[in-house]
Amino acid sequence: MQHDITESMNQAAAFMDRAQAAFLQYQHTTAGQRAELLERIAEHLENNRAKLIPLAQAESHLPEGRLNGELSRTTGQLKLFASLIREGSWIQAAIDPALPDRKPFPRTDIRKMLRPKGPVVVFGASNFPFAFSTMGGDTASALAAGCPVVIKAHPGHPGTSKAVFEAAVAAVEALGLPADTIQHVALDGYQIGIDLVQADATAAVGFTGSFQGGQALMQAASERQRPIEVFAEMSSTNPVVVLPDLLNSQPEQTAQKLAGSIALGVGQFCTNPGLIFIRKDQQFEQFQQALITALQTTPAAPMLHPGIVENYHNNLQIVLSQAGVQTLIEGSDEIKDLSITPSLASVTADSFIHNAALKTEVFGPFSLLIVAENQQELLAAIQSVDGQLTASIFGTQKDFTNNADLTSLLDIVSNFAGRVIFNEVPTGVEVCHAMVHGGPFPSTSNSSYTSVGTDAILRWVRPVCFQNFPDSLLPAALQNNNPLGIWRLISGQLTRDSL
Amino acid sequence: MQHDITESMNQAAAFMDRAQAAFLQYQHTTAGQRAELLERIAEHLENNRAKLIPLAQAESHLPEGRLNGELSRTTGQLKLFASLIREGSWIQAAIDPALPDRKPFPRTDIRKMLRPKGPVVVFGASNFPFAFSTMGGDTASALAAGCPVVIKAHPGHPGTSKAVFEAAVAAVEALGLPADTIQHVALDGYQIGIDLVQADATAAVGFTGSFQGGQALMQAASERQRPIEVFAEMSSTNPVVVLPDLLNSQPEQTAQKLAGSIALGVGQFCTNPGLIFIRKDQQFEQFQQALITALQTTPAAPMLHPGIVENYHNNLQIVLSQAGVQTLIEGSDEIKDLSITPSLASVTADSFIHNAALKTEVFGPFSLLIVAENQQELLAAIQSVDGQLTASIFGTQKDFTNNADLTSLLDIVSNFAGRVIFNEVPTGVEVCHAMVHGGPFPSTSNSSYTSVGTDAILRWVRPVCFQNFPDSLLPAALQNNNPLGIWRLISGQLTRDSL
Repeated sequence: MQHDITESMNQAAAFMDRAQAAFLQYQHTTAGQRAELLERIAEHLENNRAKLIPLAQAESHLPEGRLNGELSRTTGQLKLFASLIREGSWIQAAIDPALPDRKPFPRTDIRKMLRPKGPVVVFGASNFPFAFSTMGGDTASALAAGCPVVIKAHPGHPGTSKAVFEAAVAAVEALGLPADTIQHVALDGYQIGIDLVQADATAAVGFTGSFQGGQALMQAASERQRPIEVFAEMSSTNPVVVLPDLLNSQPEQTAQKLAGSIALGVGQFCTNPGLIFIRKDQQFEQFQQALITALQTTPAAPMLHPGIVENYHNNLQIVLSQAGVQTLIEGSDEIKDLSITPSLASVTADSFIHNAALKTEVFGPFSLLIVAENQQELLAAIQSVDGQLTASIFGTQKDFTNNADLTSLLDIVSNFAGRVIFNEVPTGVEVCHAMVHGGPFPSTSNSSYTSVGTDAILRWVRPVCFQNFPDSLLPAALQNNNPLGIWRLISGQLTRDSL
Repeated sequence: MQHDITESMNQAAAFMDRAQAAFLQYQHTTAGQRAELLERIAEHLENNRAKLIPLAQAESHLPEGRLNGELSRTTGQLKLFASLIREGSWIQAAIDPALPDRKPFPRTDIRKMLRPKGPVVVFGASNFPFAFSTMGGDTASALAAGCPVVIKAHPGHPGTSKAVFEAAVAAVEALGLPADTIQHVALDGYQIGIDLVQADATAAVGFTGSFQGGQALMQAASERQRPIEVFAEMSSTNPVVVLPDLLNSQPEQTAQKLAGSIALGVGQFCTNPGLIFIRKDQQFEQFQQALITALQTTPAAPMLHPGIVENYHNNLQIVLSQAGVQTLIEGSDEIKDLSITPSLASVTADSFIHNAALKTEVFGPFSLLIVAENQQELLAAIQSVDGQLTASIFGTQKDFTNNADLTSLLDIVSNFAGRVIFNEVPTGVEVCHAMVHGGPFPSTSNSSYTSVGTDAILRWVRPVCFQNFPDSLLPAALQNNNPLGIWRLISGQLTRDSL
């Protein structure tokens, strides 16, 4: 056993040492070169769509339409990061020119920009074989930043990962970049992942997956002599609050909208609405019945792999067995053919507030209704949840204008969530500049970052300051005549002017 | 003993719970209100200069001129953060408007900005009784961000801390802000600091001090159930490389410049040049003799407190006792009256590369010359150092243009330092927009941030996304008509336009 661990450590170190050697060259590529790499990969993926979709379909059991959309999101994401780095303002160039006549001391010339940290390890996620795996957002943002990437393929879709990796290899070769700019670790098992995190040359880690998985990687990183950051997107119950006027005026439409989000992708989204907060108002029974009916008529669909079905079953049973929990639907969950139908339960706000077991994620098509007697209890129940990726508020115009507690509610959810949503379901994450797919622990390991959207690039960089440099030796982004034509902060003012 | 710990934990929790209650109000202040708070504090400090300087002088043994300069830096820093938040672009507002006609799915309206994380604990530093203590950069940046601050006063200057805190209290009262926006912990001892880091309500920690101190706080934070970030600025040896043409053409001037930086403030700066890399060239002896002479003629001056003298003595003896180290000057170090004169030693590059003990910080007026036989050995020695706050390159125009290895050298130091400096000493940190006072571990706990300069505010905030919000319920920074008039990223383009 000791021998195996040593071999795995050696393998991990070899991957990361090669990535470090590639970094010494790759960090000197221009933004244009890296943008071309991302665009070429996107092009290769599009050209291989006909091969990739059936492969992913066989391995993930996700439907063709969903996978086609996900591949489009993946190539769109690669192109978005290409456009981000071509535009260039993301590197936060700042220049404070020398003040030779300042009293009592002159000021020297000081310039700053973001630079890549070094080789990055990215863990593929089972629920997004394209968009959060081999060439997903973590890899795209790290390559855009100037960091080589070592991808730990998810064992749930090894063939898809390999085929996607081949598209990357083709692009790297065509552009004459170092071969080890992108590497693919298809080795199986838990230990190789830990060893990649702990390898000396590893500069940072990107992970999307379970709370247990994220915690294990964070622990491994904390045991390093030189700590590094693990950006783990781990677990979220994505609370939804339904306000009284909406509940009473549109009970059925609201139930149907929520049921669609609960059942979407067999509930296998980190933004699935797992908690629904509601007041026991006049139309409450009608809402609840409509939600039951909508979920009961959802056809069974297969989950990704047996491990997910087993975890879903176990976590669901823990919630359903808690004191005060009333099971409204207990769906089927056959591990053998992976097929699942949704489940639903309810609990009083009072029971919810005092029971931590009801606040943990059940990854799959399940939601818990938290039923409050009054507005005060509703707010207290919402306030008792932990850090979340999202929080949604559903209401009518009347709810928004006549509700004296809306400000309190907004405060509560803004203080625990990464994304606050009005009248829309939390599933369906946009890849854009303003997206935040992050939030306080336990939803992620670090609330200052997002794993989706252009700001995801900020995880792989650190600021470096250049003091009193000869202009010719400065990085292009900081040279006097602004050869890249980018926005820069000069003496605290944003401008595209030369100095 | 158990009883004491419990009492300290209770005290820490009480401080942080009050700060959390203040946060619920303070987060709703406008940037203008927070800017006024910072400006009022600066004004109070200026008005009390005549009282504060003698107090700090008696407690820190630092000379009047230095303390006057430091107080000016402190008030300048408060005013700089006020101007930063009035200007407003620091919150990184981004708007991706709805695309209702997009195919195959419409896009909803998505907006993002940075929001304060919550109550912050700031540890005062002994070597900067004003600029890195009660109202130093950590406190100023946290208050600017919208976070209440609990200040753990440094026991080395309790009276100065208290007097500075009173200026803050006066400003908080005058503006009618919550009294617990700024709190002062004058309790002594190690445990209360740990308990403040571990209190439930603490959202983040700022620390400037020793490696051991920083490590203890990082460890305390990692033991929390809900992890938080400790931004610790801990230890740096600030390597300086002297290139051959400068060594041979200006040996004495270079030695004098470096000696001034080594002895400045009795060596009590985190940016003190602790390692000087040099080739054994023709004028090497002359340079070394000039450095010895300059340091030997430096008058003795008192260090801050007996603990610093003792640590300096112990760490110095560890370095001087290593194999191959030649002591060039062994200065006096009397713990009784705290008076110190500088020390200097040398070692071959080959011995340096293989001995980790020579790479740790000796906080005080000491520097180690690392003497290489050739350019290759020089680069290898530099490459063997850990993460640093700064790295300096000294050379002539000829060194910069004729040195084929300069690119390698720049690569090496840019990959391990937070600030890279040409022909200037590392001491003397500017407070400006482009400053980076940070760097890879062990210089700081997180290389993505700086503790000096306007970007220091980014430690206390996290991004929050607002999806499909009614305009009237959005924070002012994100409303359509841009009421704050700030720069925002609309559809990926920086603009001050309304939507």
